[in-house]
Amino acid sequence: MKSNILSTIQNPTDLRLLDESQLPQLAQELRDFIIGIVSVKEGHLGASLGVIELTIALHYVFNTPDDLLIWDVGHQAYGHKILTERKEIFNTNRQLGGISGFPKRSESLYDAFGVGHSSTSISAALGMAIASHLKGDFEKHHIAVIGDASIASGMAFEGLNHAGVTDANLLVILNDNAIGIDPSIGALKNYLTHVKEGKNPKQNNIIKSLNFDYSGPIDGNDIFAVIRELKRLQQIKGPKFLHLITTKGKGLQKAEENQVQYHAPGKFDALTGELHLKSEENLPPKYQDVFGLTLLDLARKNEKIVGITPAMPTGSSLKLMMDEIPERAFDVGIAEQHAVTLAAGMATQGMTVYCNIYSTFLQRAYDQIIHDVALQNLPVIFCLDRAGLVGEDGATHHGVFDLAYLRCIPNLMIYAPLNEIELQNILYTAQLGLNQPIAIRYPRGRGEIIDWQKNHFSHYQKVNIGTAHFLQEGTEIAVLSTGTIGNNITKALNLVANKKIAHYHFPFVKPLDQSLLKTIFDSFEKIITIEDGTIIGGFGSSITEMAAKEQYQGSIEILGIPDDFITQGTVTELQQICKIDVKSLEKLFLTL
Amino acid sequence: MKSNILSTIQNPTDLRLLDESQLPQLAQELRDFIIGIVSVKEGHLGASLGVIELTIALHYVFNTPDDLLIWDVGHQAYGHKILTERKEIFNTNRQLGGISGFPKRSESLYDAFGVGHSSTSISAALGMAIASHLKGDFEKHHIAVIGDASIASGMAFEGLNHAGVTDANLLVILNDNAIGIDPSIGALKNYLTHVKEGKNPKQNNIIKSLNFDYSGPIDGNDIFAVIRELKRLQQIKGPKFLHLITTKGKGLQKAEENQVQYHAPGKFDALTGELHLKSEENLPPKYQDVFGLTLLDLARKNEKIVGITPAMPTGSSLKLMMDEIPERAFDVGIAEQHAVTLAAGMATQGMTVYCNIYSTFLQRAYDQIIHDVALQNLPVIFCLDRAGLVGEDGATHHGVFDLAYLRCIPNLMIYAPLNEIELQNILYTAQLGLNQPIAIRYPRGRGEIIDWQKNHFSHYQKVNIGTAHFLQEGTEIAVLSTGTIGNNITKALNLVANKKIAHYHFPFVKPLDQSLLKTIFDSFEKIITIEDGTIIGGFGSSITEMAAKEQYQGSIEILGIPDDFITQGTVTELQQICKIDVKSLEKLFLTL
Repeated sequence: MKSNILSTIQNPTDLRLLDESQLPQLAQELRDFIIGIVSVKEGHLGASLGVIELTIALHYVFNTPDDLLIWDVGHQAYGHKILTERKEIFNTNRQLGGISGFPKRSESLYDAFGVGHSSTSISAALGMAIASHLKGDFEKHHIAVIGDASIASGMAFEGLNHAGVTDANLLVILNDNAIGIDPSIGALKNYLTHVKEGKNPKQNNIIKSLNFDYSGPIDGNDIFAVIRELKRLQQIKGPKFLHLITTKGKGLQKAEENQVQYHAPGKFDALTGELHLKSEENLPPKYQDVFGLTLLDLARKNEKIVGITPAMPTGSSLKLMMDEIPERAFDVGIAEQHAVTLAAGMATQGMTVYCNIYSTFLQRAYDQIIHDVALQNLPVIFCLDRAGLVGEDGATHHGVFDLAYLRCIPNLMIYAPLNEIELQNILYTAQLGLNQPIAIRYPRGRGEIIDWQKNHFSHYQKVNIGTAHFLQEGTEIAVLSTGTIGNNITKALNLVANKKIAHYHFPFVKPLDQSLLKTIFDSFEKIITIEDGTIIGGFGSSITEMAAKEQYQGSIEILGIPDDFITQGTVTELQQICKIDVKSLEKLFLTL
Repeated sequence: MKSNILSTIQNPTDLRLLDESQLPQLAQELRDFIIGIVSVKEGHLGASLGVIELTIALHYVFNTPDDLLIWDVGHQAYGHKILTERKEIFNTNRQLGGISGFPKRSESLYDAFGVGHSSTSISAALGMAIASHLKGDFEKHHIAVIGDASIASGMAFEGLNHAGVTDANLLVILNDNAIGIDPSIGALKNYLTHVKEGKNPKQNNIIKSLNFDYSGPIDGNDIFAVIRELKRLQQIKGPKFLHLITTKGKGLQKAEENQVQYHAPGKFDALTGELHLKSEENLPPKYQDVFGLTLLDLARKNEKIVGITPAMPTGSSLKLMMDEIPERAFDVGIAEQHAVTLAAGMATQGMTVYCNIYSTFLQRAYDQIIHDVALQNLPVIFCLDRAGLVGEDGATHHGVFDLAYLRCIPNLMIYAPLNEIELQNILYTAQLGLNQPIAIRYPRGRGEIIDWQKNHFSHYQKVNIGTAHFLQEGTEIAVLSTGTIGNNITKALNLVANKKIAHYHFPFVKPLDQSLLKTIFDSFEKIITIEDGTIIGGFGSSITEMAAKEQYQGSIEILGIPDDFITQGTVTELQQICKIDVKSLEKLFLTL
């Protein structure tokens, strides 16, 4: 791999010394560099490959970091990171102590705004642009690069709607590749496709209607065309909108052909693109597949069942139901607010709705859970995927707040299964009719039980609402846990064999098993609660509330996520930071 | 007042027996009826007056309640309530035990979906329409009536974007009166104005671009025109959009002329519309005015200060700053998500941003607080107006979850002032530079100190971060409170004069004054915490967490909002339900 040009570039100042004619070669080298590292170190691939030309053009034309550049979501910012002083450490991407997989203010001056969740870039860039005006700077450029999946989210519309009535020096660049993580959906996407295909008489009217200076669509993988257009737009004041057509995965044939799979492909052959798939034969299932397969099984038997995902059919495995029963399984795009209230509307008409949203993204629909679901006591079944620590995606994506923010909502049950079987059984039980909403939270990644399907699929068991149970008996100290973190405790207890320690599993964070809890208060002089959610306001907090009410005289220690944002790393590394990994627990249990 | 026709109508079945020629007379009677009662009982006026013709036409043309009708927000649904079996109890509107000021499923079959917060109607109606299809009903109509302020909110866009790619039998009616509570803003609003004025070549292209069958704009106060168009649309399948132009306050001259004031005018003369304004001379100020006047004063002296409100300039009193320093005070429309990330963007550029959002509406921007502000530790100053129980607006509007949902967020300080002076001082202190974000919560309505301005405006005092203090000394029992509910405690303690009871005020819910708290744990055998937020997860919960950590041996009782949705009523009545009013506290203190 030749990298004669890339090797000379530490930052955009170096880049801007190049002759325009050298840039295609640089683009090729930058692609090769990304492919070379991601093929070994893993990470997000397709999005960054699609915007290589745009990345180079932006830093070539604009005066970054003085001009402020925001990458929406940030999956596509690898090229940006490499060109902005992080080439040498790019191989630490997404690792503990390494660089973040997303732009991050504390990491680089070139990262004008931290991202991860979608559709924030227009609002943030507009805020910066207004601030620049207030400070008397009318020359600075403020640029938001946003994909066609992200721009369809409500928040992006709010930003456009405001920007259109300002004279802010804002450039919104639509990176239109017709795909987010999964293919984009919605009326706006269809409209954009018409624009691309020249079916609209003039130009992009929606954007023009919102008072933007619209330009495009142009080929975003043609670096000279992009530079030419950026230079033209650089001279125009006020809100501007550039519509670029790009190809996700550009430059690696397999990534272009299988855009969903190559969004984050794992390890692969850098030359051929061939995936290095691991055998899954002797591994327990992913919780996502337990969800997807179980829901499909239930939906086959129960015609009232509907599934909803906001833009995560593959990630959540709702795709299994979408493929077989498309009329009852909906991808609504990056629209968590809509997803929840759509579910509420369906529930009023007697449908049994499984609304699957990643824990971190459910934060986007918090009001809708309270106002549209819980207040009306509609029995929507929320499935909170990727709850707890998610690992390499880091601080923006950990699902650690859900227990705290959901626990205060009346009418809402909260359930965190210990393993695949409990997840199956609660999914089964929920469709029998709970007469109130429930949030079921489970983590990213694999469970515990390899042959989960063999024995179980036709033998669902009804869950007793509000009950907890012991996993290990003990005499002096009670360890109380909720969710899959309980497996860490079991493993640690097996290592220490301390008969003083009892272990109780509380799958229901709400309603709490008050009767068992009172027995525990009466029987143990010390209680330790363990969860993979925030120490403040979560499961442990609910135990202290009850303890205060019952005047428990023993001591209570809460383990969980401390009052801090946890960075990226493997789940085990991050659990270690929080002292809830098997080793830390073993150590703790040895001291008791 | 003649009401020959209205008196014959209990429900839409009666209405549909009328001859079309009788409907203008009915419209007049319905207006008179609403004006007659609201002028005495108070409530929301202008919105309902504007849609009288639409209300009658909808129930006349469609087969409610089988056809499903959703009023977005619901301020405009008084006519609907009166025509749907609630005429006789309409005088109990917004009172404890009476009917809700908003449509509410548990109140009437005709209220297809409970509302209060804006922009939910399209998602909910679409969910119902999809459910009807799944149940094999292709004839049922699903209607969302939404105003031009609400349709500009991101959630509405998400609903339209999804609906446009379905064949759902959905009718969205835009009630375009160019005003929400305050005048509508944004690029979409300007666009709609162009459409109305015939400046657009053809029709409403934005809506057509989203694949809706668009019709309009037509005069929504012309009952015959509306009926004609509804009947035509009734025959068309799939997503349809009707653009109506109406006048808010229609039929009461003063309400048409002063649309902001007559949104919810208080008592007035039913014939002339003249307001019955009460003298404010010997009353303490509204917290809203303390906020508005203080911010204006600070902004005059500190050029970095910016104010943001999502569509509540009058309600929040940010209007005071908007009038004098418009370049630094922004109404961004009903766009809480955008408001928060806009503030974050400004904060990255060194601006000192006061982002004022009603506590209940901040639920809409929960993810943005976590992901865009707190994670980046940007020192945005959130001013949470209408925190706690709000009174007559009821369950949809109480700001009782904020302490619980904010407490788990790292980096975010939470402050609840006892009174006007503390509110002023924290607003002053925040702009001195906290280097982290803060949420300041204060209630709807009036404070405690009549001459708050006379002595204080030029004498701001810097608040010591994280400190609490005692308000009354005592020997055995410590009452701990946060926020203005502390004044109830002071009043109750003054009535009982029980020297055993000490009273501590914790304005900082986070960071807690741990040092004082430890002293309290050491000194008192009983602690009672009192807040106007949820018992679960809030201030009291934080005390139990600390008590567990410190192995406090006494008892702790948490008073606050129980785990239930609280209905409408006066604030005092609702506090009584929660046992935190002065009388209940007096009674409690007598038993100690």
